[in-house]
Amino acid sequence: MDKAKLIAEIKSKKSFLCVGLDTDMDLIPKHLLDTEDPIFEFNKAIIDATKDFCVAYKPNIAFYECHGPKGWESLKKTLDYIPKDKFTIADAKRGDIGNTSRYYAKTFFEYMDFDAVTIAPYMGEDSITPFLEYKDKWVIVLALTSNKGALDFQFMTDMNGEKLYERVLKKTAKWGTPENLMYVVGATRAESIKTVRKIVPNHFFLVPGFGAQGGSLIDTAQYGWNDDCGLLVNSSRGILYASNGEDFAQKAGEKAQEIQKQMEVILVEKGFI
Amino acid sequence: MDKAKLIAEIKSKKSFLCVGLDTDMDLIPKHLLDTEDPIFEFNKAIIDATKDFCVAYKPNIAFYECHGPKGWESLKKTLDYIPKDKFTIADAKRGDIGNTSRYYAKTFFEYMDFDAVTIAPYMGEDSITPFLEYKDKWVIVLALTSNKGALDFQFMTDMNGEKLYERVLKKTAKWGTPENLMYVVGATRAESIKTVRKIVPNHFFLVPGFGAQGGSLIDTAQYGWNDDCGLLVNSSRGILYASNGEDFAQKAGEKAQEIQKQMEVILVEKGFI
Repeated sequence: MDKAKLIAEIKSKKSFLCVGLDTDMDLIPKHLLDTEDPIFEFNKAIIDATKDFCVAYKPNIAFYECHGPKGWESLKKTLDYIPKDKFTIADAKRGDIGNTSRYYAKTFFEYMDFDAVTIAPYMGEDSITPFLEYKDKWVIVLALTSNKGALDFQFMTDMNGEKLYERVLKKTAKWGTPENLMYVVGATRAESIKTVRKIVPNHFFLVPGFGAQGGSLIDTAQYGWNDDCGLLVNSSRGILYASNGEDFAQKAGEKAQEIQKQMEVILVEKGFI
Repeated sequence: MDKAKLIAEIKSKKSFLCVGLDTDMDLIPKHLLDTEDPIFEFNKAIIDATKDFCVAYKPNIAFYECHGPKGWESLKKTLDYIPKDKFTIADAKRGDIGNTSRYYAKTFFEYMDFDAVTIAPYMGEDSITPFLEYKDKWVIVLALTSNKGALDFQFMTDMNGEKLYERVLKKTAKWGTPENLMYVVGATRAESIKTVRKIVPNHFFLVPGFGAQGGSLIDTAQYGWNDDCGLLVNSSRGILYASNGEDFAQKAGEKAQEIQKQMEVILVEKGFI
């Protein structure tokens, strides 16, 4: 999916919500465990219930690969089930030497047909560029993550006062364009989103950390907004596990709609729709 | 496998060689492509030919997951085929928020029974600690990688002259011990291995970049050696693709033995055996 289409979808759905499919066998309703593929059954119901309120889906690969080949089958079936007008993100946080990263790119862009994949920047340029060679595919680089551990290295400051995450933004922005590169910017660090937006005014941000992790939608929109909206705000657990009973899909849909309504207010206020 | 056993294996095999199973369908001999599972057939022959000359095997997960569920089956079969006296490393370069990293740990330490997994440190403490909770399992943190892109961020220097990879070493060393934590230190940066060894005198290093990437075994041993040997030097392409004919396994065995002989000289010179 290209950027123009993504923006059109945001306007059409009046939403910049990404639903994170972190499908955890320990948390899904017990009545699904007797089905042949509980993960897919859960995802199918969640997708049906939320698709009118979001523009993107983001399965986190950890929750699938821990089940081995069967988990990868559930993942592929899920991806095939997601409606074609959705932006799909493999939250894989991969990255290796160039020769190897090419194979990770094959996994997510050829064997599977995701629109985007998340990448850890520690290994530098050759770990990222193989993903950028695909037309209408996206790399989403970890810049500023939403977790406590983000403080360990991402805020390291050099002699000119530049932080590691700032260097990641500046360098990686030269390797791609706002048409094929986005950044992970955690909602839990709202003030820093402002700094990030100054460095990369034209890129989309994938914003985790909203909901269960405590980030604020209003703050994220205030600091991260650009003329293209420029935001995909993710919610995983807050939607998926809104209920663990028979009504899980209905409750997930209601939660997604509640977020969509908040987003619609922001989109109207910004004059975007 | 615990550290004492690993050291005993190094003494017994007179080798600190790790064979990297970066099994690439485009590079394996053509006559294997007609078998039911070419990747496993190739790995089986390579393991049979090299097992007397190495102490560890390291499949790089990228080369398996690009084939979807079938690739994961090949990986599991390969792991099950590796003799029990070998140290096994999932070269996965994973890392996510704590809640998610737990599932990556499950993948490699429970669903599969690897001894170790490589981890990218960008996301900090909670991305690494879930892997450290397993007894006799190891985390191998990317410190200084062998690729060109290592220069982009790993050498970033703070106001006290400390480089990012040095900070990674110092911080992560507090989260684990030399009994459950190793570091990736590229052979292509021999001088820096010396710096790394000063910071973490007691940890094992997994050293890629020897062979195809140009690193030197003598330099690696000179700068990286400690009283436990402290080195697992990896070779992938140089061994796997020594020949692409019917004699590929024989040539791989010869190449592995050639490296083992060089290592034996070093081990004798150091008085280790």
